[in-house]
Parts: sequence; structure tokens; C-alpha cells
Amino acid sequence: MRAVVYQGKGNIALEERDIPVIRNAADAVVKVTLTTICSSDIHIKHGAVPRAVPGTILGHEFVGQVVETGSAVKKVRPGDRVAVNVETFCGECFFCRRGFVNNCEDENGGWALGCRIDGGQAEYCRIPYADNGLTKIPDHVTDEEALFIGDILSTGYWAAKLGGLKPADTVAVLGAGPTGLCTMMCARLYSPAKIIAIDVDADRLELAKRQGLADVVVCPMPERCRCGAEDYADVAGKVQEYVVGRILSESHGRGADVVFEAAGGADTFETAWKIARPNAAVVAVAMYEEEQVLPLPRMYGKNLTFKTGGVDGCYCEEIMELLSAKKLDTSCLITHRTSLDGILKAYEIFEGRQDGIIKFAVKP
Amino acid sequence: MRAVVYQGKGNIALEERDIPVIRNAADAVVKVTLTTICSSDIHIKHGAVPRAVPGTILGHEFVGQVVETGSAVKKVRPGDRVAVNVETFCGECFFCRRGFVNNCEDENGGWALGCRIDGGQAEYCRIPYADNGLTKIPDHVTDEEALFIGDILSTGYWAAKLGGLKPADTVAVLGAGPTGLCTMMCARLYSPAKIIAIDVDADRLELAKRQGLADVVVCPMPERCRCGAEDYADVAGKVQEYVVGRILSESHGRGADVVFEAAGGADTFETAWKIARPNAAVVAVAMYEEEQVLPLPRMYGKNLTFKTGGVDGCYCEEIMELLSAKKLDTSCLITHRTSLDGILKAYEIFEGRQDGIIKFAVKP
Amino acid sequence: MRAVVYQGKGNIALEERDIPVIRNAADAVVKVTLTTICSSDIHIKHGAVPRAVPGTILGHEFVGQVVETGSAVKKVRPGDRVAVNVETFCGECFFCRRGFVNNCEDENGGWALGCRIDGGQAEYCRIPYADNGLTKIPDHVTDEEALFIGDILSTGYWAAKLGGLKPADTVAVLGAGPTGLCTMMCARLYSPAKIIAIDVDADRLELAKRQGLADVVVCPMPERCRCGAEDYADVAGKVQEYVVGRILSESHGRGADVVFEAAGGADTFETAWKIARPNAAVVAVAMYEEEQVLPLPRMYGKNLTFKTGGVDGCYCEEIMELLSAKKLDTSCLITHRTSLDGILKAYEIFEGRQDGIIKFAVKP
Amino acid sequence: MRAVVYQGKGNIALEERDIPVIRNAADAVVKVTLTTICSSDIHIKHGAVPRAVPGTILGHEFVGQVVETGSAVKKVRPGDRVAVNVETFCGECFFCRRGFVNNCEDENGGWALGCRIDGGQAEYCRIPYADNGLTKIPDHVTDEEALFIGDILSTGYWAAKLGGLKPADTVAVLGAGPTGLCTMMCARLYSPAKIIAIDVDADRLELAKRQGLADVVVCPMPERCRCGAEDYADVAGKVQEYVVGRILSESHGRGADVVFEAAGGADTFETAWKIARPNAAVVAVAMYEEEQVLPLPRMYGKNLTFKTGGVDGCYCEEIMELLSAKKLDTSCLITHRTSLDGILKAYEIFEGRQDGIIKFAVKP
Repeated sequence: MRAVVYQGKGNIALEERDIPVIRNAADAVVKVTLTTICSSDIHIKHGAVPRAVPGTILGHEFVGQVVETGSAVKKVRPGDRVAVNVETFCGECFFCRRGFVNNCEDENGGWALGCRIDGGQAEYCRIPYADNGLTKIPDHVTDEEALFIGDILSTGYWAAKLGGLKPADTVAVLGAGPTGLCTMMCARLYSPAKIIAIDVDADRLELAKRQGLADVVVCPMPERCRCGAEDYADVAGKVQEYVVGRILSESHGRGADVVFEAAGGADTFETAWKIARPNAAVVAVAMYEEEQVLPLPRMYGKNLTFKTGGVDGCYCEEIMELLSAKKLDTSCLITHRTSLDGILKAYEIFEGRQDGIIKFAVKP
Repeated sequence: MRAVVYQGKGNIALEERDIPVIRNAADAVVKVTLTTICSSDIHIKHGAVPRAVPGTILGHEFVGQVVETGSAVKKVRPGDRVAVNVETFCGECFFCRRGFVNNCEDENGGWALGCRIDGGQAEYCRIPYADNGLTKIPDHVTDEEALFIGDILSTGYWAAKLGGLKPADTVAVLGAGPTGLCTMMCARLYSPAKIIAIDVDADRLELAKRQGLADVVVCPMPERCRCGAEDYADVAGKVQEYVVGRILSESHGRGADVVFEAAGGADTFETAWKIARPNAAVVAVAMYEEEQVLPLPRMYGKNLTFKTGGVDGCYCEEIMELLSAKKLDTSCLITHRTSLDGILKAYEIFEGRQDGIIKFAVKP
Repeated sequence: MRAVVYQGKGNIALEERDIPVIRNAADAVVKVTLTTICSSDIHIKHGAVPRAVPGTILGHEFVGQVVETGSAVKKVRPGDRVAVNVETFCGECFFCRRGFVNNCEDENGGWALGCRIDGGQAEYCRIPYADNGLTKIPDHVTDEEALFIGDILSTGYWAAKLGGLKPADTVAVLGAGPTGLCTMMCARLYSPAKIIAIDVDADRLELAKRQGLADVVVCPMPERCRCGAEDYADVAGKVQEYVVGRILSESHGRGADVVFEAAGGADTFETAWKIARPNAAVVAVAMYEEEQVLPLPRMYGKNLTFKTGGVDGCYCEEIMELLSAKKLDTSCLITHRTSLDGILKAYEIFEGRQDGIIKFAVKP
Repeated sequence: MRAVVYQGKGNIALEERDIPVIRNAADAVVKVTLTTICSSDIHIKHGAVPRAVPGTILGHEFVGQVVETGSAVKKVRPGDRVAVNVETFCGECFFCRRGFVNNCEDENGGWALGCRIDGGQAEYCRIPYADNGLTKIPDHVTDEEALFIGDILSTGYWAAKLGGLKPADTVAVLGAGPTGLCTMMCARLYSPAKIIAIDVDADRLELAKRQGLADVVVCPMPERCRCGAEDYADVAGKVQEYVVGRILSESHGRGADVVFEAAGGADTFETAWKIARPNAAVVAVAMYEEEQVLPLPRMYGKNLTFKTGGVDGCYCEEIMELLSAKKLDTSCLITHRTSLDGILKAYEIFEGRQDGIIKFAVKP
């Protein structure tokens, strides 16, 4: 079969590989029917994910059809259409029993697919602990609708839950890329009075507003902005000050009740705690490449809570229920489609943020 | 001024009364601009509310304009448009500090307006602890939109919070009258996958479905039913069995994750716990006129939680934020309009459930 | 081997049985080193537990040593000393994943041992889903210390958790028998300001006070009482009124913040909600043989929460940590010791509450 | 009257001042009967608290007797013995209603006493919002027992609550000074299986262990250590590594479930997150004089929660209940006693950590 392989820092390629087989009783093998590229794949390509093993097939966000199951698999059978979970977890260890599946004690626990073990930018993929790693897709839910369940939608869902959202809250989301958009979708499930999206990319803000994901959009980069916000930040700078001012004016002068930092930019962590109201939760959803400063003396008395980390992918059945009931809909995320033949070109477009790309749907 | 007065069991009448004045520093006087009739008013009229004092002006669900404030009032000023809270509470006692304002230790704490002290089916009304009892209405929110904040919408909001709803839950609501409809509205704020409304009144179910408040409707009374449910219960009886079966089939065979009992009928409490899945919360929102049976031996091992009581009306600011942001909309509840002159006739229609009545809006 | 067998309503006997063997990959076989009699065994003997199957070996509260494990067992090995969980659960179904293991969907899920499948009043016992049903006992914890982990101590722990206890609360516990005493022990883990024990048995109250489990004891039966309470109820009656008065006077006139009903007597459920303060949680820990009345009209506005059901036995590792750290100590419960030869006599003593019995330790 | 006055950076002095009087209806004037010195007073003296106003009487931790009350004061009367809350709060604003009283919107909301308005190292003190700022002391509780309620004990109580402690947890507390010891006391209320205290001061660790506040003590400075820990860190360095190793070995290799950082030292924040298990809460209780580094890339996937800030002093009634019931006891903290005449000398001893000082009790 053909597969996208991480060959080492800077290099990915389409290679011919053997179709995977069952190795453990809890495994399943899935025929991939739709896959996609995630920004983590770009991080791997850049050599910025130390745990990534060269030679591994990439891809951790995909859907498919079960073709074979190990003897201990109970939940799925050959023929079932399934969404694949980015995380591998045993379900039984200290962390799994508490829902902290990202820290599963199994040697491949947490994010392994497409990173340390072969993933799903390929025609087939082996899924360990298949009962935990696969979620059945109901007939009336399409592959495209289910494509993001296992990773970015799980991330938004987990982040919204971490945020401790309550009805009528004011929520700020830094970053309107795929993860930020999923965070908005899932934050809406808790009925905040207002979601404020902040991004330098006016097109993404437009999308957030048009889709009803954001109630208010704030674009601090006027010259690039076509998002319809009424006033703009001073071109010469003061970007953070402008953003803080806008959020205060949208939140009774207090700041946001919950802030999601899904941008991971140079100063976005600092902006995040500055736009938070006292006693807010600040959820760091993004992956950072730099250490951040926590200026405790300057924020003393503001009594903030910071929640950090990566998705615990253990809510896929709930998410599938919500998709199935049309309470969640990620269809606006797929802006581009291609086949496995075109995936290297797709990596370029995705990495370069060309052509209004949000997410690709790739058919193997 | 003119006012509807409870004259003792069975009798209410329009009387001429003095305009109320400030008595305590925390009081405000409000000119009533829109009022309504609540089923509790009917209970009072029937003599079924022991704490109700004959001679009291009725009405505990209304909006108005502040005309005078006592010296200790801080939050509102004359001229402010306000929604009135059904409950009177000091905000400082043991119970108030815990949010249990229905049990405020003040001698008039809890539900007093229109029951033990003069209420708002009148041209003016005195509001004790005005800073807690009044919520400012933003300019773009109309009186009709704000009319129900203080009582039935607060009840639905409180009930939904009590229910501990989580995204993707299956929710059952017994009763699609005003309180049941408000409970559905507020339950939606937590994004259950499915809300199932159950009522013997097909028109009310139709309303619930048309307004997007219920995803599924179950009407156990076929001969009266025009609600579009595909199959119906056996006319000869087995009504409860039918309802239980329908809810099981809509909930993966488990029963509802959360049940709201907003009907208060002869056997609706029993139906409520029977349609609940093991470990569910059953919230008794209705006022019952009869004692209920809790058959602990029969339900042993089902591990249910029962939440009982009356609204804690301390969420009005959150509710107003949601109304203001169009995340809540009660406009479908007002099916009839009249003036204070017509209110005695309105009582008849409301009590008799004539003419598709849900709620009256009454202009003093 | 010898085993106590339930032969049908009214009859139990010591019989000779085969030593059990592994049937499923997740099973373990345990050599019983210490076992005990529970009041549920008495209920079974009386024919009052419909699910109990005649011919089954009794006993669901015991410790032992693993002698054999199935191929899928990971957590325990032959030779391990273990405490046995009253409940059998798969750990993977809808209910297990939410901690509601009493409602495990497995055909033997929930309370099966010593009821529907052979239990531990025997020399050996087969334990299904052994990784969930067994907890390793550290070397420095004795069999007697660990004996109650799986059932009554789990019940007290689960009940205390259900009660939502907070530091400084006032707690009332109805019933100072084994379950009530375990509930007090576990309630203490949350540091209430005061635990009030209520029982008609003065000896049990004395024990509760002497062991530091209860801060205040209330004995409504003066003629039998040697518990040192300063005043007593009127012999002629008014028992409930007396109890209510005592609890009010011990709780700033409000009633208890949390009430545990561990007596299961004729009017103890009614007493439970009467001694609860408004907005309290009332946890029904006892098994009732009669239906109870829930007088919603009379308690309207008191806003009580009722939590019902049987133990979810999924906290055994936490409980073992606490025992191991000497933060829990159940040694005061064992008042009598015997061997399997003496167990039928022990049943008589236990059922008759003779001789100051709290619990037997029975050596097979 | 005599009072300790902050005269500007570096200078404090005993001055003669007028006895304060009621200014607002919610004020009370208290005759100080026992006061103490807090490390925050030292910070003020050093000029390290920007909001501190020169000319202000110091002192924010004291008890006394009410001598006069304003017309709006309800809870206390002249003659009442009271503990004073470090924080001033209105009880009504957005933040107060949510329990975030440290961020009370009043102009003097939060920590004002002894910082921005005259405090209690004096013979008398005016207390604004006296109903919130004073807690009555029961007759059987002494001044010394109640002395720390308003500040460091409140801080420990608030921190323990923030930590979300559960029974059987493993807890690490960095710093065994007054705040650390109070944090341990309050953490014990939640019955962790193990509290591990870490400090470079062996005497303080000894105290923690002798008082039963810590189960395990870790002293990374061997040459100064007499605390009885069995092994010591390498003198030449590797202190953090040693501490991390000790905590891992005391926590099943996982790290602490909850970490309280009450030291505020050069590298203690870093140690705090390193000794936390994945998904732990790290509560920053100390006041830091330096910014800290949050190395998100290095801790990615560890999924930590950081809780920062200063005490919300709204639990004094609960704390008093616990003191009154002997569930809390701070008497071990008072190691030194003096009078107001000796307070300047006491500042020296306290600042220099001389003579085994934990806390002074100062009689005006």
C-alpha cells in the first residue's frame, strides 16, 4: 500500500509499505477511507516533535472501515465504519481510570499514531486498543462529517470541558485556525453569552462569524483585514493593547470569563492572561515551541488558573452523539479535497496557509 | 390604583388600592408595565397555598419601571426598566450565601410577592431587597421578552442547573406547559443530544417541536393527538408502559440521563423515575398536591438521585445576558394578550386551558 | 471444600463443594483467609432478595490469597494477598466508565458474589473480572484490617462521597450498626465539624463515641440507654419529635447539612428528611423492605436532594491507601471471632444482635 | 493610641495616633486584643508592595473586641469578641457573589487593612464592611486560637480548597513556614493518604512532623538538617533532583497529586511542577518577587493545572466552626509572645528567622 512516511527532519515522502496486520489481541486493522493533514504533522516534518520516530507512517486524524479485529476486541467488527482516535490508551491504568488518557501508562499510551507507530496517511492502519481507539460512525453520518472527531474536534471538546464554561459566560478564543474553530464549536455547547474570536487572519475570522461560531471578531492587523470589525488597531503597533481594550469593552470592563489560547504565537500567551478577568481560567490549547513567562508578581491578586496540556481523547462517543444529532457540525472546516497522490502538494498548501485552506480531506 | 386581590379560598377580584410606598431602605417601588398569570396564582385561588394571605395583591411575574428607591438601593434608579424576581432575599444569610435564596432567613424570604406581600397584578408594586429582586432590562430587550425571567424562566434555568446536564445527554421532560417549555429552553443551553417532551396535550407538543425545544415528542393520548408522533399508545390503557418503552427506545435502551418532572399529574412522578436510566437525576420541578411514593425496595440498585423543591431565583443576571444575546427566547410563550380590565376573564381561560393558551401578557 | 450454601427461603447450611476453577480469562481463584457475615446475608436467608439463587454459596465480604489467575488477569498474581470486592464489573461498559459499577451491563454485573454466583463463606472462591474485583493488601495491613474494604467500608466511602460533604458541615447518621459506623468513619475523611449518631441501641452509640466516630450521640429510647446523652426522649412517644429537636439544637437550628439514613427502620426515612436542613442531601444507605412516602407538598420549598441506591464498589484502591496510611481503621468493628465450623451459630448471634455483636471475623 | 506605622520604604515606627471612629454605616471599630506580624508586613517594610501607602498603620492579622458599630452592621455588636479578616469586601459585586472576594470591586476591596487603610498593629482599628470582615469568636475559643483565622489560616484553607484535594491523595507542600504549615493543616481536612513537607529548615520540618501535619519530610540541605529524614541530598548540589526523586519514591513513581508551593524561593516554582504527577494541580500560594518560567514545550503532555493568586477570605465562619470543634488547631504556630512595646524587636526576630520563630502573639 502507499503511505506518507516521515523520513527524518525536513523530509516526508510517499512510500510503498506492507498492509499492516493484527499484532495483539486488542488490535484492529482499518482500511482508511478519508484522512487529513494536521498542524502536528507539520511540526513532525520540521523535526520539532522529539518523540516522533523516523520511518513512521504519518497521520493521526482519519476515518475508515474495520477489516480485521483481534480476539479481545468487543466493540467493533469487520465492516464497521469508524472514526480513529489520535490517542492510544489501555483504559485500565491509574491515569486512564481518571480520564487522563493522554498519560496512559502503556508504552504507546497517549499520542502514538502517526508519530511513534504507523498512522493513517495510508491505505490501511493498525489500531491498538481498538475498543478505545475506534468509534463507530452511524449510517447517516458521512466520512467528512466524522473526519475530525479523533483529533481536533476532540481537542476542542476537551478544551471546552477544561475551561469549566457556564451559560452566559464571555469567552475569548485566540486563534481561528482549525483548532480554534473547533474550540469555538465546542464552547458553544455550553451556551456562553458571547464568543470573541481573535486572529490576525481576516478570512478565518470571517469564516468564524459566518458559521455562527464567533459572536464578535477582533482582528488586530488592519491592513490585512476584511472581517468587518468596526475599528482597527494602530498599524504602528499597540496590537496587544488594542486587543485587551476590545475584550474589556466586550465584557463589562472585566475581561473574559474563560480564555482559550489556540494560536501559540510569539506573544499570544501573554495576551491570553491579559484579556482574562480576575479568577478566570486560561486554557493553553496550542502547542508552543518557546518557553513562556509567568509573571506572578505582576498578576498577583488576579487569581488566574492556567490549564495546560494536550487532548485527553476519551469523549469520542459523546462527540459522535452530538454530530449524529446535528448539535455539532464540522463541515465548514473542509475547504480542500485531494487524493493520496496529491498529498505532498497538499502539505505545501496547508503549511503555507495558501488559498484559504482550513483543512484538507484526502481520499486514499 | 387597580389590583387583583386574593380574597380567600375561591375568590379573586379587581379592587382599588393605594399606590405602595417605600417602607425600608432596601425597597423600590415599580410601575408595572407588563404582568402575567402563573399556575401558582391558580393554586392560591383554590386555597391550596397555605402560606398565601387573604387580602394580598396577586402577581409574582412581571416587569416594570422603577419609580422610587430606598436609601440603601444601589443597583437600580428611578427610570430603569426592570424584571422582577419572584423571590425576596436578603443576600446575606446562611442560605443566601450558598445560593439557596428560596430559603432566605428573612421573614419574607423566598416566595412572598403576590402571596404574603402585595404583588404585581396591579399598577404599582413595592419590591423589598430591590438590589436582589430587580434585574435591569437592556434597551434592546422588550418587556415581553423579559416578562418571564423572574419566575418560570428562572425555574427552568434552576432546574436545568440542578439536573447537572452534560453535552450529549438524553433528557426527558414530563409536561410541555409553560414550566416544561422553559425547562426545555434552559436544558438546551447544555447541549443534550436529545430532548424528549412528554405531554397528553398534542398542541403543546407541537409547539415544543416547532420551536425546536424538543427533538422528540411522546404523546400517550392518541385520540387527542395531532403531534405527528409515528405511533401511539393503546387507547385502553398501558399509557405508562408505552411512555417507558418510547423513552427506552430513544435512549439506547437505558432510559434518560436526566428527567425533569414538570407535569405534577397523578402518576407522572412514578413515570419520571421509571424512564430514568440507572444513576440518573430526577428533578421534581412541578408543585404536587399529593404525596408521592418512593418505592425504595423496587428501585434498589437503580441508584437514582431525586432533586426536589422550588426555584432559587438568583440567576436573573445570567438569564438576562442570555436573553440579551438571543441565546434564550421566550417569545413563543405569549399566546394571549389583554389589559388589567380583562384579567379576570384571562384567569378563566388560563385555568381552563382554553384556546391554546400558554401564557397571557397583561398590560396594567 | 466446605461452604455455607443458601438452600432457599429460610435455610442455609454448611455443605461440601468442589473447589472452584478458572472459567474465563479474567477470572482468579482466591483461597479465603478471613470472611464475615453481612446483614445482606440475613436478607437472603429470609428470602427477601429476589435475585438470590438457591444453591449459591453465600458470602461477599472477605479477604484471601490468589491461587490461580486467568490469562487476561494483569493486576494480581498467585500468592498475592487480596481484598475482594462485593461487586463484579467489567470496567468497560457505559455505566462502568462513569463509575456506576453497581449497574455494570455484564450479566453478572453489580452484586453477584454470594447471591447469584458462589461467594466467599467457603475455603475458596472464583472472582470474575479479577483485576476489578481484587485489591492487593500491603504487607503491613492485616487480614482483619482489610476484611471490610469490599463491602461495608466501600459502602460508607461511597455514601460519604455521594453526600458531597464539605469541611465544617454538620452530619447526621441514622443507625450505628456496621454500615452506619463505616459511614461515620468515611464521613470523617471530609472533616465535618460535627457527626451526630442516632440509634436506639445505646451500646452501639457508646462504641461510636468511644471510637471518636461520632461527636454527639442521640438515643431516643431512654429505658435502654446507657450512652451518656444528657437528656432523653419522653418514654411515652414523641421519639421522632425528640430526635428532630436534638438535631436542630446541635445545628444552629437549621438541621443537618447532610443526612445518612443507615437504619432502614419503620420511620427512619421520614426522620431523615425531617432532620435535614433546607437544601441538604439525604443519602439513603440502608436497604429498605418497605416503600417510603415522599410527601412533596409538605416538603415543598425545603429543596432536598435524595440519593438512593447501593454501593458503587470502585474505590477500593483509594480505601486501601487510606487503611495503609492509618487514616481509616475498622478494627473496632470486629467484636467476635469464630471458624467456619462455628458460622451457623455466628449467623444466629449476628441476626439476633446478641452479645454486643457488631461483626464476626470467620476463619475458614 | 499607639500604632506601628509604615513610614515609607525601609522604615516602620511606633507612633501615637487617634483612636479610629466609624465613618460609614457598615463600619465597626474594634479594640485589638491580640495581633501578630506577617511576612507581608516585611514585604511592605521593604517597599516591595507597590499598593502599600506610607503613613498607614500596619497589621492585618488580629483579634479584638467590638466597641462600636455603624447603623448598617447586623452580625456583630459592641462587646463581641471577633477575628478580623485580612480582606475587605462588599459581598455584593460580581466578584464577591462568586466568592472571589480578593477582587471585590469596592475601591478598598481585597487586601486593604494594614496596607492601604489603617490596620491592627495598634490598640484600635476601624473595620469596613464589618459584617463580612469580622467573625465572632465563641467563648471557648481563645484569642490565641483565633488569631490566624483572618489571614494565614484563611490562606491555607483557600489553598486546600483550590487544590481540589480528594481522600487518599498524595500531597506535597513546599515550605514549612507559617503559610506552609497552615496549608498542611487545611490539606489534612481532606484526608490525603500522605502529606510530604519540603523545606531547607530542619526545625520547621521537625515541627511539621511532630504536630502530625506532615507524614513525610524532605530536607534537601543536609548540613543544617536535624529532622530525622533517613537520607540526604548531595551537599554539592543536585538538590532539585534529590527532591524530585524523593517525591517520586513516595508516590508510586508518579509524583504528587496536588502540589502547594508555599516557599516562593528561587527555584521552588520549578520544583513544584517537577514533583507534580501528570494532570496534577499546582497551587502557587507564595508571593513571588520574581517572574517565573512556564516551559510549556518541556511540560507538553503533562497536562498540569496552575492555580495562582491570593486568598479569598470568605470562609472564616467555616474555619471558626472547625476551630471551635477542635478539627483545626493553630496553637503550635505561636512560638513567641510580646507586647506592642516589644514589636519592633519582634519584627527583627521574625524577619531574621531567629530563635526558632514561627509566629509572634503581640498584646497591645
